[in-house]
Amino acid sequence: MNYPIKDLTVALLASYRRHGGINHLDGANLPSRAGVVAITSDLLRLVFPGFFDDQVVHSSELQAETALRLDSVAGRLEDEIYKSLGCFGCPEGGSRDPRPAAHDLATRFLRQLPEVRELLQTDVEAAFEGDPAARTREEVIVAYPFIEAIAVHRMAHVLHGQGVPLLPRIMSEWAHSRTGMDIHPGATIGSHFFVDHCTGTVIGETSHLGSHVKLYQGVGLVARSLAAGQALRGTKRHPTVEDRVTIYANATIVGGDTVIGADSTVGANVFLMHSVPPASLVLMEDFRVRVTHKRERPGTVDFQI
Amino acid sequence: MNYPIKDLTVALLASYRRHGGINHLDGANLPSRAGVVAITSDLLRLVFPGFFDDQVVHSSELQAETALRLDSVAGRLEDEIYKSLGCFGCPEGGSRDPRPAAHDLATRFLRQLPEVRELLQTDVEAAFEGDPAARTREEVIVAYPFIEAIAVHRMAHVLHGQGVPLLPRIMSEWAHSRTGMDIHPGATIGSHFFVDHCTGTVIGETSHLGSHVKLYQGVGLVARSLAAGQALRGTKRHPTVEDRVTIYANATIVGGDTVIGADSTVGANVFLMHSVPPASLVLMEDFRVRVTHKRERPGTVDFQI
Amino acid sequence: MNYPIKDLTVALLASYRRHGGINHLDGANLPSRAGVVAITSDLLRLVFPGFFDDQVVHSSELQAETALRLDSVAGRLEDEIYKSLGCFGCPEGGSRDPRPAAHDLATRFLRQLPEVRELLQTDVEAAFEGDPAARTREEVIVAYPFIEAIAVHRMAHVLHGQGVPLLPRIMSEWAHSRTGMDIHPGATIGSHFFVDHCTGTVIGETSHLGSHVKLYQGVGLVARSLAAGQALRGTKRHPTVEDRVTIYANATIVGGDTVIGADSTVGANVFLMHSVPPASLVLMEDFRVRVTHKRERPGTVDFQI
Repeated sequence: MNYPIKDLTVALLASYRRHGGINHLDGANLPSRAGVVAITSDLLRLVFPGFFDDQVVHSSELQAETALRLDSVAGRLEDEIYKSLGCFGCPEGGSRDPRPAAHDLATRFLRQLPEVRELLQTDVEAAFEGDPAARTREEVIVAYPFIEAIAVHRMAHVLHGQGVPLLPRIMSEWAHSRTGMDIHPGATIGSHFFVDHCTGTVIGETSHLGSHVKLYQGVGLVARSLAAGQALRGTKRHPTVEDRVTIYANATIVGGDTVIGADSTVGANVFLMHSVPPASLVLMEDFRVRVTHKRERPGTVDFQI
Repeated sequence: MNYPIKDLTVALLASYRRHGGINHLDGANLPSRAGVVAITSDLLRLVFPGFFDDQVVHSSELQAETALRLDSVAGRLEDEIYKSLGCFGCPEGGSRDPRPAAHDLATRFLRQLPEVRELLQTDVEAAFEGDPAARTREEVIVAYPFIEAIAVHRMAHVLHGQGVPLLPRIMSEWAHSRTGMDIHPGATIGSHFFVDHCTGTVIGETSHLGSHVKLYQGVGLVARSLAAGQALRGTKRHPTVEDRVTIYANATIVGGDTVIGADSTVGANVFLMHSVPPASLVLMEDFRVRVTHKRERPGTVDFQI
Repeated sequence: MNYPIKDLTVALLASYRRHGGINHLDGANLPSRAGVVAITSDLLRLVFPGFFDDQVVHSSELQAETALRLDSVAGRLEDEIYKSLGCFGCPEGGSRDPRPAAHDLATRFLRQLPEVRELLQTDVEAAFEGDPAARTREEVIVAYPFIEAIAVHRMAHVLHGQGVPLLPRIMSEWAHSRTGMDIHPGATIGSHFFVDHCTGTVIGETSHLGSHVKLYQGVGLVARSLAAGQALRGTKRHPTVEDRVTIYANATIVGGDTVIGADSTVGANVFLMHSVPPASLVLMEDFRVRVTHKRERPGTVDFQI
């Protein structure tokens, strides 16, 4: 049987004309998601050499291998940056011509990789030290979604800091999809960071985290939802978390002027909208939940037993 | 070394006979997950033309390109619908012969795409307006997992409404896996919807959401877990959320007769099992958590500092 | 334009020397993630025959098909186990030579598949009975992320119990990435298990769960975060959940000596750090949240309405 393709096409084209905001036609090329994913995977191999290769990497081949990989990544990264700049404009303070600007940004980014590695080593250390389930550092690097998430974040954060539009966000959302943790490329995170289990943890754009911060799954460092909306762009809307703070699962910390003082611990499922001083213990009111025998609460008999 | 393949095979075949409920043999073909995923990806390209293509789409080619894509999707969609009907039966009110029924359902679905796009434009608008971290609408469409999740939902919801079995659920679970948000194809959702961060948000089968609803990560619109189980199928088990309600992270709303009145705000981590009137502010009791200095609570010294 | 590849390479090689903890060079091959994923996918096909194949599997071909698949999986599984043993050592009580040890472990694992299937049939039953949104058992197996997560867990748990290092964790994290649920291979889980929606649920390494346990999304069975860190390895750090317990969304249960007594129900968003007796109903204090009209709380007018 045939389809009324002509009718369907006419109807859809009319819709394209009517609802133009969700088309992207005749414009400059957007960065390719598949391209950005391939680049990010190669960057992970450069950052953790030997971990994500199917063959053993020998020291003797390392120099040639690294040069080859850098050369391949550099050109492709420049291309995707170029597309991002073509759509959204060049950052301030550099060339206004997207091609040399993209070349310069890609080069500067690659120069930062040793610094990124320096931070990542502290994260691996924090993950290993902080999780008794970890048997070796190799297990942490190969198997923990956290390592992938933080490695992608630390690279995306460099690009974001250089003013590259869109591309860092595509990198971040790829890691989000794979790890369940959503770290905006703008978030500033100190050394020795660890998030156990990752899924559902959200770290907003203007969050500031000190060093030795430990989070669990489902923690939200988020903004108030304000009627002002887009008018707030650029203001600090997400919390500050000082050094050596631990935040348990599913706690939600809200607001740009909320500061969790150093050495504090926030219990699971807390909803906090104000600052707390250093060394605070923040728990649900009285740390109590009500425990009754089911027969004392006949109104709840419909609960599954 | 060789394996005792014969022994292993005999043991496994005996298990297939013993535990028949988890085999699918000699039956009609189930829909192919890989096939459904490919179709869904193509539908996303039809709905947001130019956004997910690696090459720029020019207006001049748009008509030919769209007709070609529709033709390709139509046949494959019909095939997967046909398999679903073959396994689970045709919906009421149409042909009882799965082949013409599948053809008819696929055609009717494709006719709905312009309406789906109309709703999706309002969602893109809500996401852009509601998130100061968004710099452009393009960023929202290309990078936000929410857009993928809601686009797949709005399409799966149309198929679900037409009575197509299984297939819409496979579409939804693909989006769930990629975005962390689980929207059952049966859920009814008004215009201008936005879920920030998405991960962990669950919207049950019989939920009704008005327009301009804003949710955060980890929000659950769920059913009571009742001993009745399957006996409840078809009843309204999930909440109603009226227009312009905002629900913060990790709040859980339970029950089919629970109504969140229009213009209400529900704070993070609230567990709510009853209705609230319009313009309510629903927060944890007294909005307080207990904050103490750690030295005042020696019983908790084993918490990491 | 050319890149300063030589400079970039020198800088990165210097970083590899300086931060050696995150390189893996000249060592034994680590198991391949891609290889482990392919094996796990094939094991799922062996466990649920006919469900994940694109073609109908006929009973007449089942024996040949199964033998072929077992043969293919056995060799590849042995190879990945061999690599794991080469990096991390052989388990106690078997051969100290990794090649025969790997052969023996792979064979013993495959012999367990019928028992794994026996448990999985009870899980499918629990999912179907427990979720009125499920129309058929086929829908549960094909579309529910829970089934994939628990099937991978039950297989990874067998390998973990045999003392195979790393490999079971790679299997688990693959399922974690796809389903959002993080079950450590060490966790012990009874029959008739069901987790609705899955995303964000975390079950730690030393958790013990009885039979007929039902969890929702975002539930955490986690350890205290103790300064002792790695010193705690091997101790019981995660909760015990007895038979027929239901735990609602986003509840967090903490600690190795915490026992949730049989037939208990834990409400959503509860944070519990102590044991409760059988048949307990555990809810947020007084089961209340504060509901006010927004105009009565002018301090909160900045909340979106």
